[in-house]
Amino acid sequence: MSDLDIRPAAPEDIPAIVAMLADDPLGAQRETPDDLTPYTASYERLARDPNQHLMVAVRDGRVVGTLQLTIVPGLSRRGATRSVIEGVRIHTDERGSGLGTRFIEWAVDESRRQGCQLVQLTSDASRTDAHRFYERLGFTASHIGFKLAL
Amino acid sequence: MSDLDIRPAAPEDIPAIVAMLADDPLGAQRETPDDLTPYTASYERLARDPNQHLMVAVRDGRVVGTLQLTIVPGLSRRGATRSVIEGVRIHTDERGSGLGTRFIEWAVDESRRQGCQLVQLTSDASRTDAHRFYERLGFTASHIGFKLAL
Repeated sequence: MSDLDIRPAAPEDIPAIVAMLADDPLGAQRETPDDLTPYTASYERLARDPNQHLMVAVRDGRVVGTLQLTIVPGLSRRGATRSVIEGVRIHTDERGSGLGTRFIEWAVDESRRQGCQLVQLTSDASRTDAHRFYERLGFTASHIGFKLAL
Repeated sequence: MSDLDIRPAAPEDIPAIVAMLADDPLGAQRETPDDLTPYTASYERLARDPNQHLMVAVRDGRVVGTLQLTIVPGLSRRGATRSVIEGVRIHTDERGSGLGTRFIEWAVDESRRQGCQLVQLTSDASRTDAHRFYERLGFTASHIGFKLAL
């Protein structure tokens, strides 16, 4: 396979990112790829925040993956900074290509580079394949993730 | 009971916050209340970040609770902003006083005020009392929380 580039998302990547968010059993009910307005507004907010890293993986000029890495300073664990990975999506054409592993390894390396002592993420309880994937990469399923929709 | 004040943490609250972080089955092994240096550095970083809200609950001039609320913009869920609650601690003298409920309700209200569509948190799988507490407050245990120590 040809070379992969992992870089910050640009405004012109938004349609490809939203298409991947929507091409998912859970995302299909939550996303509106035909109306990009709310995504563009949120992109602007992410781009202004130095603790937010909305990333894309690009192969042959085509966006084939996305994730969001958030750097969260804190007091607990002796003032540890942690990173949070959200919104991981790999294009269907790239599943099984090793891109997911490379992308998460990139996020872990970048977290280390930024002085984080902990990387964390939550995964919907229904995504059992994803759970095995994160455990293979060294993550521990030590926590319960709670959500409240407002 | 006398009135409760919920307000942003000030530098002089750091010893009381760290004492609460350490007075906990998991925190006892992770925190160093005798050496506040790393906590002070992290406090400065939190105080500079407009998306970070390190809060204390104060009764009769005494810090009796702490939590950290982080505002996280994002692209998924139609550009939804979410909030993340971390580092919730209630002083042992205040357990059962309803402070935990009031403090989390404050965090939910503040998240709504800041335009969040979702509030999320993770809780160590061993904290079964905390899980019941969050479910009573309307949270759903829909996710698995993964962590990787660096």
